[in-house]
Parts: sequence; C-alpha cells; structure tokens
Amino acid sequence: MKELNNGICSIESVQASGYREGKYGVSIIYHENSTCVGVYTTNKVYAAPIDITRKHLENGKISAIIVNSGNANCYTKEDGIVKGLELAQLTADTLSIPVEDVAVASTGVIGRQMPMDILKPVAEKSLSMLDNNRQSADDAANAILTTDTVKKECAVEHTLNDGTVFRVAGMCKGSGMIAPNMGTMLGFITTDLKLPQDKLQEALNKSIRKSFNMVVVDGDESTNDTVLLMSTNEIEAEYDANFQEALDYVTTSLAKQIARDGEGADKFMEVTAEGCRTQNDAILVSKSIVSSSLVKTALAGADPNWGRIISAMGYSGVDFNPDKVSISIGNRDAEVKIVDNGNVTTYEHPELLEKAEKFMKEKTVLINVDLHEGTQAATAYGCDLTCEYVHINADYTT
Amino acid sequence: MKELNNGICSIESVQASGYREGKYGVSIIYHENSTCVGVYTTNKVYAAPIDITRKHLENGKISAIIVNSGNANCYTKEDGIVKGLELAQLTADTLSIPVEDVAVASTGVIGRQMPMDILKPVAEKSLSMLDNNRQSADDAANAILTTDTVKKECAVEHTLNDGTVFRVAGMCKGSGMIAPNMGTMLGFITTDLKLPQDKLQEALNKSIRKSFNMVVVDGDESTNDTVLLMSTNEIEAEYDANFQEALDYVTTSLAKQIARDGEGADKFMEVTAEGCRTQNDAILVSKSIVSSSLVKTALAGADPNWGRIISAMGYSGVDFNPDKVSISIGNRDAEVKIVDNGNVTTYEHPELLEKAEKFMKEKTVLINVDLHEGTQAATAYGCDLTCEYVHINADYTT
Repeated sequence: MKELNNGICSIESVQASGYREGKYGVSIIYHENSTCVGVYTTNKVYAAPIDITRKHLENGKISAIIVNSGNANCYTKEDGIVKGLELAQLTADTLSIPVEDVAVASTGVIGRQMPMDILKPVAEKSLSMLDNNRQSADDAANAILTTDTVKKECAVEHTLNDGTVFRVAGMCKGSGMIAPNMGTMLGFITTDLKLPQDKLQEALNKSIRKSFNMVVVDGDESTNDTVLLMSTNEIEAEYDANFQEALDYVTTSLAKQIARDGEGADKFMEVTAEGCRTQNDAILVSKSIVSSSLVKTALAGADPNWGRIISAMGYSGVDFNPDKVSISIGNRDAEVKIVDNGNVTTYEHPELLEKAEKFMKEKTVLINVDLHEGTQAATAYGCDLTCEYVHINADYTT
Repeated sequence: MKELNNGICSIESVQASGYREGKYGVSIIYHENSTCVGVYTTNKVYAAPIDITRKHLENGKISAIIVNSGNANCYTKEDGIVKGLELAQLTADTLSIPVEDVAVASTGVIGRQMPMDILKPVAEKSLSMLDNNRQSADDAANAILTTDTVKKECAVEHTLNDGTVFRVAGMCKGSGMIAPNMGTMLGFITTDLKLPQDKLQEALNKSIRKSFNMVVVDGDESTNDTVLLMSTNEIEAEYDANFQEALDYVTTSLAKQIARDGEGADKFMEVTAEGCRTQNDAILVSKSIVSSSLVKTALAGADPNWGRIISAMGYSGVDFNPDKVSISIGNRDAEVKIVDNGNVTTYEHPELLEKAEKFMKEKTVLINVDLHEGTQAATAYGCDLTCEYVHINADYTT
C-alpha cells in the first residue's frame, strides 16, 4: 500500500471543486454513473440533505455529490427539502445528469433557513471549476470546512491478491460536535474498484466502526453526519480483504485527522484498551477514557493524573477487576507503566510520574490500558479540552 | 415547611465539626445510636471508605461520620482500608463508641496513599471541636470541600399530617467530576424523625433520583460518591409523605447548589423536559441537554443557539417527533418560545432571538422543552462550560 498525494483527486477520473465566500462554501465531487453507499447520523433530529441523499442512493447509482458548509439545513422542514433539492437540481442541470443522481450534504449552524441568494452563486462558481488536479482536490477539501483549521484528506494505492491495482481516496471535515457515532462530520471516499452496492455498504459499515465511530471531541452527536463511499466502477476484479485494508487505512487516517483538529485542541490522544473480554468492552473502555472531560483537561495540563483514567474505566459500564489493570502513558517509541497488574508503581517510584508527565507534554499522547480479562482490543482517538474549545463554541453563531 | 438556618446543626442533638489544614480537611457528624442508610457510586472502581461504610451500615446503626477531603483514598487497596479504619478508630476512641458505628467518606485525588501524618492531627483537632451551633455547622460544611468555592447546606422544619414537627438538615460537597448518578459528591443528611432502616433507604433512593442524580457538571462519575441519611430517632410518629417532601426539598436544594458551584461555572441552568411518554424519557432528554458541551458553551457565550438543544434531544436515545417539539428559554418570571410545536418562531420574528439572548445573559437560565408526546416531566440541573473549568482541571493535582 502506498500513499497518494492528490487527495480526493487521486483517482484520475474523479473531478472535484470547491469555492467559498466567507463562511459559506460549496464542494462538488463528480464521476458519472458511480455506485455509492452512505452511513448517516443516528440523531433522531437529522438534516434535510440526509433525507434527500438517502432517497437518491436507494438504487446505489450516483454521479455527483454537492456539499455546502455554513448552514446545516437542519430543522428547516419543507423549506430545507426544497432548498436541498434546488442545489441538487443546479448540479444536475450543470452536469447534464438526472437530479436523482446527485447526493447532497450540509454542515453548519442548525435551525436556520438556507441563504440561497448566497449559496447558489457559490455553488455555480464551484461547479464551473470542476477538475482533476492538486488544486481542485485542495479546493474541495477546504470548502467543506467549518471550525476546522486544516483540510483533511488521505489516499492510497493498493493491490488485490490477483495483482489488480486499485485506489481509495477520501476527504472529510469535522472538528466540533464530534461524538461516538460520528459528530458533525462529513466524509467522502472514492474508489476505482468496481464493487456491488451491498459489498460497498458492508465494507463502509465495517470501516466506520473502527475509525469515525472511535473519534470523540466533545461528545455531541450532530444532526448532519454523513459518510459516502463512491465507486467509479472502473476496475473490475474479484473482491478480497485488501480492499477493506485500504479503506480502513483511509478512514482511520481521516478519523485521526479529525481528532487532531478537534476544536481548540492542542494535543492528540490515542487510547488503546487491551485484554478485554469482548470487542464491545474494548470500545466502551477506550471511548470512556477518550471522552472524559477530566482526562481531556489533564491532557491539556500535561498532568499524568491516572486516577481520572481508572475512574473513566470504572464508569464505562464494563465489568472488570480493578486490581488486575495495567495503565501506561507514552509515545510511539516508549511508555511508562504507571499501574502494573493493579500495583501502582509510582508509590515506590515517584520518579515515574515525572516521566509520564514528560510524555503528557508531547503533541501526541498514547494511553494504553490492559484489563487482563481477555484478548480483545480497540483504539479510540481524541484530543485535549482547552480554553480555546470554550471560546470557539461560546462565540460561534447567532 | 420553613427553612432553618443552622445547616447540619439545625437538629439540636446533632454535633458537628470541621477543621482544615491546606487542602486536607476533616469533618465529623455525631449523634449516638442513629439509624443510617447510604447510596454510593456505581463506578466499578470505588474508594476504600465506601467498602468500610457499606459494611458498618449493614445493621443500620451508626453514631458518627468522619469525612476527609484532599485524598480520595481510592485505588489504594489494603493500605486504603487500613487507613480508612484508622480514621474510624480514632473517631471511635475519642467518642467512646464502637468502631463499627463510624461511617467514613473521602474526597480528593484518586490513586494516592492517604498522608496519615497530616490527616490524623487534623482529625484529632476536628474531633475536639464537636459542637452544635452555627460555627460548627459552618466548619463541617467547609472542611469537606475540594474545588468547591462555597459551602452547601440546607435545612427545613416540616409537619406530618398528625401535627408532628420534624426536621431534615443536610450539607454536601461537589463541584467537578459531577455526572449523572452523582459525581464526586458527598452528601450528609440528618433528620430527627424516627424511621426504620428500610423506610429511610426507600426515601433516600427516591429523593436522589430527583436531585443529585439530575445534576451534571462534567459527565465524569466519581469513585467516591456517597450520600448518607441519618436519623437521630428522636421523634416517633407515623410516617407520611411530608417526610419525603422535606427530604426532597433538602436534596434538591443541595443538588442545585452543586450545579451552581460547578467547576468554573458562571451560570446555572435548569432544564425541564415536559410532555414525555415516560419518566425515563423525561430524564434522558433533560440530562442530554444539560450535559451537552455545546449547550454548556452556548450558555457561557449567552448564545441562544437552540439548534444545539434540539440536537442534544435528538441523540438522547428518546423516540419523539421533532416536528411537534416546543423549546423555550427564560427565567423564573418570563420566557420566549423559540420553537412552537415544531415551528421556528424566529424565522418570522428574529427579534425573539434577541430576547432569548437577554435571558441567556442572566445568572440563572431556564430551558423548557415540550415533546408533546405524553404527560411525564423531569428537571435536570447544570452549569456553563467555561475556560475556568479547563484551568481548574488542567492545573489540579500532581
């Protein structure tokens, strides 16, 4: 597997564009007669574009995706459907494709009607810029951002067992309202490998469980989450697990980029729970730690206050014996074991706390807990909770 | 029902004391041959004093409670039990009561061994100061505090249907690590009404569901939560619902005081969910709103961003029709309906948003949501999320 450098345009037949005016941006991804599947927010209150996209994706066929930032088009009722369809129609007319072959996604403020006088010209401009190059991939990745500070993309080339070379390319946005089960996150992934709709759906579901669903920024689940996986159907080959591997690589990379760019975040944390009885236990424990406001603020303060880690494990809902637990803090190269099989090593070796503090001061902090109850493991991704998060969210909107 | 002014000492036969040296404080509550029941954290990792107190309360008989702040005595294994019992023994020896009649509670940093060289002299000093007056109630309410900025107490006098007058008096601490199901919160409530152990337990369980369990500061559930209800058995009478009313008044007042004193909090919010199908639905919806980081930061920024409220309702896990919802923001005297039966009033009347913003600027903000699905209601208590919360928790310990 090798990384490619052209973001969503790493697949040459895919055209993309993006244009922004102030907080309103519109991105387009275009490839005629693609097969596309989606995963959406589980929030009971969901945005109008999700209704539209779900319907347009029923037959699996799609040619273009139009995404706007600046307004979530959520809790906008009939008006939201009408305006979402207006954007789809504009895309369809410009590209001479049926409106049913256009998927729509939105991100931004909830509960405001879409300002079409601003969005339509921005969309028209964006549509006029469709291309396949580094710049168009950049534009597309940038125009979907809201409080994000950097664009997020990842693309790889990989080989099936029979020697067939294929590509997976993705871009996403997400910074705040990031909870288990996808926060305000939009993700768009393309592949040139031809796969039936149900196989694509299965691969996407599997991949999301390990990636986007393991990211927590603030625990608020958005009304607009959408991840679309689109195959351009160019490469015919027998499916094998290497496709899943490439897809997982892209989604996990994007998920980590979201955590790293969490609103106000200064540091990234990767929490692995090992030795769990079930996969679900491992997910619950790792997410509970990564979600804890107290662990997040301890990370901000570079404070190896592991009591907050064990406390978060304790309220995760998972059954385990606290006296068998191990807890380590470190980076990719080294770690310090603060609790070893239930024994607090720092009671006798207080210098280990200083070592842990040094690791906590780095930009990437790895926390590893081992329950010693079984063989299952899971990794969750998060960030510190800083004043900047509060500023961003106390001052955003109205 | 009338409020009494002597805190935990509002019952004249109860003696109390408190003494503090730096971050280490010890409070005592004393009345010989009381009946006492407790409710404890559901965290899988719980502190040594909870083990001790649970055991000592099995027969319902207790004479004294000793509480220390500064160290949670959690994840301290055998050493924690030994030191917790040492504090109980010191209390028992000083008051000439059996050690089994002493309850113990701790709050502070997790995963540190108790510094008995500091705590024992503080406990001795506290024990020597036992008394029943305004000062001793103050001392007791103060010595249990950690990151709290104010003491929390409430006492009332009430009358049973047969004319019997009785009292309920309480004090508590809690500021951070406050989650559904009681955060790092310790609560001690006394009454002079004689009630059997099982009746006391039932009343306490009921009362906690409506009060302490409805407070959210940061969503982290502590390892040390303990609420004890102690009857001095002085007043014999037939139990009636007025006792529950008085107990609920005290616990709800204490719970609100915790939310108001949430770490770094500048504002208090009271969120009521009405028109729910079940009581559990009402609890889930109101808690989901009050727990949302985005609602909490919107409160900090006085931003009537009601989209975050409806989003938090949507991911609460409760089934409802978003198009029937009403949302109001206000204070005790007035409110503005921002969403009325699914209609966003501010689309036509943007001036209502300004009105809502004014309410959001007050120190106490009331949020009311009506699902129009049934008749059940519940109220949750919380606070805003400010930079100060981050500072407190990034800088606390080590």
